Amino acid sequence: MDTETLDEHPDGRVRRGNATRRAVLRRAVDVASVEGLDGLSIGRLATELSMSKSGLFALFGAKEELQLATIRAAKRIYVDTVVTPALETPPGLGRVWALAVAWIDYSRGRIFPGGCFFARTSYEYAAREGEVREALAASRREWLELIEQSLGEAQTLGELDRTQPLDQLAFELNAFLDGANLDSLLGRGDTAYDKARRAIRDRLVSVSVGWTAPAP
Amino acid sequence: MDTETLDEHPDGRVRRGNATRRAVLRRAVDVASVEGLDGLSIGRLATELSMSKSGLFALFGAKEELQLATIRAAKRIYVDTVVTPALETPPGLGRVWALAVAWIDYSRGRIFPGGCFFARTSYEYAAREGEVREALAASRREWLELIEQSLGEAQTLGELDRTQPLDQLAFELNAFLDGANLDSLLGRGDTAYDKARRAIRDRLVSVSVGWTAPAP
Repeated sequence: MDTETLDEHPDGRVRRGNATRRAVLRRAVDVASVEGLDGLSIGRLATELSMSKSGLFALFGAKEELQLATIRAAKRIYVDTVVTPALETPPGLGRVWALAVAWIDYSRGRIFPGGCFFARTSYEYAAREGEVREALAASRREWLELIEQSLGEAQTLGELDRTQPLDQLAFELNAFLDGANLDSLLGRGDTAYDKARRAIRDRLVSVSVGWTAPAP
Repeated sequence: MDTETLDEHPDGRVRRGNATRRAVLRRAVDVASVEGLDGLSIGRLATELSMSKSGLFALFGAKEELQLATIRAAKRIYVDTVVTPALETPPGLGRVWALAVAWIDYSRGRIFPGGCFFARTSYEYAAREGEVREALAASRREWLELIEQSLGEAQTLGELDRTQPLDQLAFELNAFLDGANLDSLLGRGDTAYDKARRAIRDRLVSVSVGWTAPAP
């Protein structure tokens, strides 16, 4: 069921249900970013938000549905925070850089209190089976494909050495982002983000053709 | 209490307790690598290993003690699998490379069924407080320091460009390892390890002085 469609629904009960759903999911993404998707429960969210457990159960059903809805809600926030703003930069290495900088700001700014929601929950489910894992694996694939596609555009525009395999480069850039997120959370402070920024900049410079690199 | 000392203890009860402890911890590290340290419970381990819950409780006490003992057990396996074999290679870039290759083999070989134990559990506790988090943060620091120290030896030996900041380089190499571990678990198959190997090799070549790089 699509929440955007529900917003337009003339039925007041549906509208109210939808507002409740959004409030619950906003809390759920924050909880899951710290304690994982296993840390979510209808009972806990009902208590924290002073809502009735039966009402929440009617909205979300089983725990797995709540987890999947939480992943979708986190993805919307991620797209709004990282992807959409970066895509305003025209295609080319500038856009690749904009994606990296937006990601660093997203993790550093603790849009989710536990750092990157997807890093936290992907590790939680990486070695397990089921729909939750598949949803998280798909999210990671989409993100890596977006980096790869943006690098491909830069290559087409002649800004990137044509011999560079794009999946290799996308893997490396993403590894720097994930590494900074975890180092920062585990208490090595803000410096990990500077390291990631420097690593990405230097890597892009090393494969670029006449790209004016941003300041270090 | 040090298990190595207990091994030498003349008291048969202590020796038996110690053997039980090792069996429980071997199971605990495997469980935690998939389901996290939150997935550990004395009751569950007792059932799985057909042991008495009260006996296990006497050996481990509170859940946090079990978690901390599990981290120490995982660290022993990690040191035996990754660190000790790599340190047989003489200091220099060869040793840095040996550490990276040993780590890739450790993750790829699923020494723990959930991939790298420390990646899984560090994310689980990264945004929380307490002794478990501190133990995991210390483990990560020690590992990063080992890479940095090995790079420093290579620099002293003249194998590595003297202008390279070692903490930056250690951050980058470690990010490639962690990235491959997660990509592989989330179902992108074995190729992520080849990407990490290539990324580390190319990065070391880019800063080395007359180092004979291993085959790609």
